[in-house]
Amino acid sequence: MASLAETKTFRQRLRSLSEALDSGSLQQVARILNGGLSPSDIAHLLESSPPRQRTLLWSLVDKELEGEVLQYLSDDIRSYFLSQLDPQEVASVIESFEPDDLADLLQQLPEAVIQEVLETMDEQDRQRVEAVLAYPEDTAGGLMNTDTVTVRPDLSIEVILRYLRRHRALPAITDSLFVVNRKDDFIGVLPLTTLLVANPAATVREVMHTDLDPIPVTLGDNEVANLFERHDLISAPVVSDSGKLLGRITIDDVVDVIREDAAHSLMGMAGLDEEEDTFAPILKTTRRRAVWLGINLITAFIASAVIGLFEHTIEQVVALAVLMPIVASMGGIAGSQALTLVIRGMAVGQISPQNIGWLLNRELIVGALNGLAWALVVAVAAVFWFNDLTIGLVIAAALVINLVAAAVAGTTLPLILKARKIDPALAGGVILTTITDVIGFASFLGLATLAYS
Amino acid sequence: MASLAETKTFRQRLRSLSEALDSGSLQQVARILNGGLSPSDIAHLLESSPPRQRTLLWSLVDKELEGEVLQYLSDDIRSYFLSQLDPQEVASVIESFEPDDLADLLQQLPEAVIQEVLETMDEQDRQRVEAVLAYPEDTAGGLMNTDTVTVRPDLSIEVILRYLRRHRALPAITDSLFVVNRKDDFIGVLPLTTLLVANPAATVREVMHTDLDPIPVTLGDNEVANLFERHDLISAPVVSDSGKLLGRITIDDVVDVIREDAAHSLMGMAGLDEEEDTFAPILKTTRRRAVWLGINLITAFIASAVIGLFEHTIEQVVALAVLMPIVASMGGIAGSQALTLVIRGMAVGQISPQNIGWLLNRELIVGALNGLAWALVVAVAAVFWFNDLTIGLVIAAALVINLVAAAVAGTTLPLILKARKIDPALAGGVILTTITDVIGFASFLGLATLAYS
Repeated sequence: MASLAETKTFRQRLRSLSEALDSGSLQQVARILNGGLSPSDIAHLLESSPPRQRTLLWSLVDKELEGEVLQYLSDDIRSYFLSQLDPQEVASVIESFEPDDLADLLQQLPEAVIQEVLETMDEQDRQRVEAVLAYPEDTAGGLMNTDTVTVRPDLSIEVILRYLRRHRALPAITDSLFVVNRKDDFIGVLPLTTLLVANPAATVREVMHTDLDPIPVTLGDNEVANLFERHDLISAPVVSDSGKLLGRITIDDVVDVIREDAAHSLMGMAGLDEEEDTFAPILKTTRRRAVWLGINLITAFIASAVIGLFEHTIEQVVALAVLMPIVASMGGIAGSQALTLVIRGMAVGQISPQNIGWLLNRELIVGALNGLAWALVVAVAAVFWFNDLTIGLVIAAALVINLVAAAVAGTTLPLILKARKIDPALAGGVILTTITDVIGFASFLGLATLAYS
Repeated sequence: MASLAETKTFRQRLRSLSEALDSGSLQQVARILNGGLSPSDIAHLLESSPPRQRTLLWSLVDKELEGEVLQYLSDDIRSYFLSQLDPQEVASVIESFEPDDLADLLQQLPEAVIQEVLETMDEQDRQRVEAVLAYPEDTAGGLMNTDTVTVRPDLSIEVILRYLRRHRALPAITDSLFVVNRKDDFIGVLPLTTLLVANPAATVREVMHTDLDPIPVTLGDNEVANLFERHDLISAPVVSDSGKLLGRITIDDVVDVIREDAAHSLMGMAGLDEEEDTFAPILKTTRRRAVWLGINLITAFIASAVIGLFEHTIEQVVALAVLMPIVASMGGIAGSQALTLVIRGMAVGQISPQNIGWLLNRELIVGALNGLAWALVVAVAAVFWFNDLTIGLVIAAALVINLVAAAVAGTTLPLILKARKIDPALAGGVILTTITDVIGFASFLGLATLAYS
């Protein structure tokens, strides 16, 4: 089977590559690298390599391949490689970039370098890139390219087919031509699949589709992704406020948005960046992780301070110290379930002012029911463990209080944070833990202080 | 601007829909529902509705729209609606499904219902569905459809164009024709963009692309998604072991795989299912959450048991109870960073036997460095807080131990779990927390017992 053989060969090549690296035969490494692997495979290999090997491999990549490989690399690694080049080299390496990718990349470089790079480009390319640079990266404008193929509505299919045959090639991922009037206003789309089955004598106007709404250039990239997903789009026209066709967005860039978005939610919860380099060097990793640990240390100290208020009670009943992590941790778990559900519901656009009341109410009841159920289990265990009825009653009450509090915090936090323009994926977990720790320890030790005094 | 107006109208429609619901005017609700919204919009609306409103809205959806709406619904909700129908109704509702979607759906139904539904279908449709049903859902075979347009290599472009014009329409998301020989072996692809610019007199063989490897029918869906992403594919041929063309996979289904995979990682970490219904009813939600809380309760009891071993020491030095959550929580945070990084690295295929050693080594050093740095901070704070030098030394040592242990556990756990075919996203966090709690409490209280005895 061609493909499986191919896949095996890819893995085999990787293995022989790593053998060649081990044996120090750089010529052979370069031959495997530039001979058998596609630019995206090389990028994948670089991303999967520890720093020293990565630098070595990069130095062996053919100059002509560098630009294409860079396009497939994650921001972190690409910026590093580009920072090693002077503006002239940058300009020559990124020649092959599409305007949207180029604009993204330029936005990561210092202003002075951007200007130098733009100056080395020819007039037409510069205008294209500047058109994209004018829009924020996370909008339709930042995602679009200007490589549209446009046709007029009054031409016949026959004429269009002849017109297309004069091209040497059509832009990649062209599934439709865009129909525009004399003023470049967007009118409709002519899918290639329609073009190919249409009567050659028909006019474009007669067969074009007008049920697809063009994408406003200012629309957020997540909404663009939702539109593509909901309507199974391959490419879509982007228009200005006045309806003029500005460019198009293609599914490959939308898939990147979806992937980055998903990575952001997942990595953000652990305080990591979505473009995090898996094989970042030790010092860089240590610095980045240290910040997140420091933030969480504050949370931990707040929890300790709460426990500190009840030192006297713990001294009397040391069983409290043994059981108190249960109350805090169950609250944290219950809260993170509500938090994750709401963050995801918000991401896919399911949560609105109309249904948030119902959701909060359900989470409250679920929290109370699970609080009661597990409170019973924990209370029975505690009573038998320490042979003390009071401690069972206290931990049961504290568990119900903390699970209800966790439900409220987990459900409302993402909404509150979003309203204040704070990223819920990043900050939600830390704040939630602080709340469930404080309420968990305070309710358990507080009730115990009352019960045992 | 057409589209923004359209978007506003969609939101306005939603608002008038919710007003109509509030006022109880069901006729108006039905009019808005079936008149102005696309099937995917209706599905989105159903997913965003609490149970009672959802059931009401579903009862108002036009019979002819039901099938298409079902296709856009998440598994949970779709299964529920289908379970309300008898097999005859199921068969009529799902008539419009593509074979791959239909196969997915049938796999969720009881065996008896599957058979009944298949029997009501016509011969050709049944064969198509059975072809897909033969492959596991999470493989290329389970993702593929059989709606390929195939051509022979020795025909001219001119003939192909004439042949296509005899079609009333081409299948949705057709960006290429597949070239096969007499025995249906896959030979190459003919992109529509190539077809349109090629010389009409040229043969298919002369202009077809042969650099795209077909996808083996047994390839896992994640690898299919990686291939699509790496090569910017829109559709790709699926072949049997012997190279025979079986069908094709299109980008829309791949985007679903990517989304589901991302949702699985994110939701799994919180013990939620990726198809979790945001607005599931109270009892269903309570049951599902209870399981996860129960699993985590075991973890919490294990931690408590460890603390219980040192009751005597805590009785003597109650400051230990105040500070011990800091050691456990810092370990949990550091471990979850390593865990998340490795889970993600595995998902995108970056981690291999060749580089895992480097990664583990780096995580160890990062853990030790951050352990030392934050140990210093915590130690100084503890010494001043409790005016006790010993407690500072003890907590510093425990923090270093726990952060190094967290690095080892976070890095190796996903690999160990995967090797044992346990889902790291689901089980990783719980096991990690158990480890960092146990090591955190044991090292801190154990060292304290030695120091204060």
